[in-house]
Amino acid sequence: LKIFSLNSNNDLAEKVAQSVGVELGKVSVTQFSDGEIKINIEESIRGCNVYIIQSTSYPVNDHLMELMIMIDACRRASATTINVVLPYFGYARQDRKAKPREPITSKLVANMIEGAGATRILALDLHAAQIQGFFDVPVDHLLGAPLLANYFLSDDSLAKEDMVVVSPDHGGVTRARKLAEFLKAPIAIIDKRRPKANVAEVMNIVGEVKGRHAIIIDDMIDTAGTITLAAKALQEAGALSVVACCTHPVLSGPAIQRLEDSVLKEVIVTDSIYLPEEKRIDKIKQVTVSELIAEAI
Amino acid sequence: LKIFSLNSNNDLAEKVAQSVGVELGKVSVTQFSDGEIKINIEESIRGCNVYIIQSTSYPVNDHLMELMIMIDACRRASATTINVVLPYFGYARQDRKAKPREPITSKLVANMIEGAGATRILALDLHAAQIQGFFDVPVDHLLGAPLLANYFLSDDSLAKEDMVVVSPDHGGVTRARKLAEFLKAPIAIIDKRRPKANVAEVMNIVGEVKGRHAIIIDDMIDTAGTITLAAKALQEAGALSVVACCTHPVLSGPAIQRLEDSVLKEVIVTDSIYLPEEKRIDKIKQVTVSELIAEAI
Ligand SMILES: Nc1ncnc2c1ncn2[C@@H]1O[C@H](COP(=O)(O)O)[C@@H](O)[C@H]1O
Ligand SMILES: Nc1ncnc2c1ncn2[C@@H]1O[C@H](COP(=O)(O)O)[C@@H](O)[C@H]1O
Repeated sequence: LKIFSLNSNNDLAEKVAQSVGVELGKVSVTQFSDGEIKINIEESIRGCNVYIIQSTSYPVNDHLMELMIMIDACRRASATTINVVLPYFGYARQDRKAKPREPITSKLVANMIEGAGATRILALDLHAAQIQGFFDVPVDHLLGAPLLANYFLSDDSLAKEDMVVVSPDHGGVTRARKLAEFLKAPIAIIDKRRPKANVAEVMNIVGEVKGRHAIIIDDMIDTAGTITLAAKALQEAGALSVVACCTHPVLSGPAIQRLEDSVLKEVIVTDSIYLPEEKRIDKIKQVTVSELIAEAI
Repeated sequence: LKIFSLNSNNDLAEKVAQSVGVELGKVSVTQFSDGEIKINIEESIRGCNVYIIQSTSYPVNDHLMELMIMIDACRRASATTINVVLPYFGYARQDRKAKPREPITSKLVANMIEGAGATRILALDLHAAQIQGFFDVPVDHLLGAPLLANYFLSDDSLAKEDMVVVSPDHGGVTRARKLAEFLKAPIAIIDKRRPKANVAEVMNIVGEVKGRHAIIIDDMIDTAGTITLAAKALQEAGALSVVACCTHPVLSGPAIQRLEDSVLKEVIVTDSIYLPEEKRIDKIKQVTVSELIAEAI
């Protein structure tokens, strides 16, 4: 068994290796002068079960190509199995044709990774569970909700009696239900409606939030538009406090500013995506998925 | 027949469409906030023969993913054939395992493009002709040498009687031979040898260059290290003048500075790779491959 880290999330990979009780394998991932990726695997992997840990997070195309080239190199070096650990699976949101002539990038990327030679996939909170079926090789689908629940259960400052778990859209109800079970709390759903084209969306809340501490859960926070609007709507509906949690802190564009400016008291995320210094604001708390991944390895 | 351009080389694509006598198809290639590529094909392509013009030049991973996603979208939009025009095919140089545990990126990328749904490839001066065999779909392999030869034959300032065509390495002899035939000139070969490890390479010249105007030809000029050293060696061996030509102006890192500082009088390249403003120095002359490509379409 050999675990390799590429360039997207070395901190997490280190922790996973530690949990498993091995050293990270030696590999250098650099660039040629013209920007092409150059990978050197610096130890034999013939006959090994290789694990490659890589999030296809920003810069997604570079991280994806690192992964592709690494899989190719492992296959040609006669690794026995090539297990790709994707703490975050990018390009997941285009997972169906909503309009004519749209690509389905989620399936495209699944085909690419499998075509390069991956023999098994370990993924964490895929944007839709259906994405498992985009692969023909086995997929282990890990869930962040129990870890997030643990955070809430172990934090005394968060009231435990009068919580409500809120899904910011219909697609996330199953995820909210899961967290609510752990917390023994009821759920509520935000029902976004656009009354007319070109009129701002209205946030209807389905379920009781008045006098309760609201916990919004989503799979990812990208620009944080939806989640900060949802937080505002919850506060206006009488929630005592609002926090948010998600597995994947994409946090692009205006996200950090929006979170800072929002009514959200805390934002709990995992380390599925590496957070650079400028995104480590006080409001954001990180829980690690390293042990979850280590167990699945 | 519909021709689409992505973001790598719009100028060339415009010229190709003009030569063919059609308008470029409407497509927008942008990025989501998190850096993922978003492609909208803005006209129907059902039942069409689609041509996608894209060089996988710097930033190579972005340009490659644009191409992959565009192919996927075309396939799902029921295009009849998807013809991928690759004026420059990046990741070509890793085309064999020279050391253990190396990837073969050239084959990996060929598999990716074909796997996404390309039904035919049009390529220009592949780094090695063998790369054609990395595809199972038909490959039209176009050559830049006749165009480069035309440039020399139509430029009166370049002496025509006493030329010699020089290959900067053994791998390029066939290419040099081709150009030499057009110019009715002899050839010479630079035979790089490293006398001992960690000792600078010695440039031996095989063939007669003294009293001749030397034209070095290569498939690409990347950092321009080899070609500027070769130029110096040729001058020291008594060449009257030295110019260089290549199909693909990769021109990364120190390339422009090295060309400026070199004894090279002129560097003739094609527009297979778009040259940004800062690379358009006086020494560099561009000839267009648009008609060559248009004929092959
Ligand atoms: N990287 C991205 N950033 C923002 N939106 C995206 C991205 N990728 C896909 N989408 C859009 O997000 C929508 C799908 O999101 P969802 O309804 O949450 O599954 C589709 O309309 C996609 O076009
Ligand atoms: N993008 C690149 N930039 C510089 N060298 C490369 C690049 N890709 C591959 N190579 C190396 O170039 C050599 C092959 O070049 P060649 O001998 O001209 O076919 C191999 O040693 C490769 O490792």
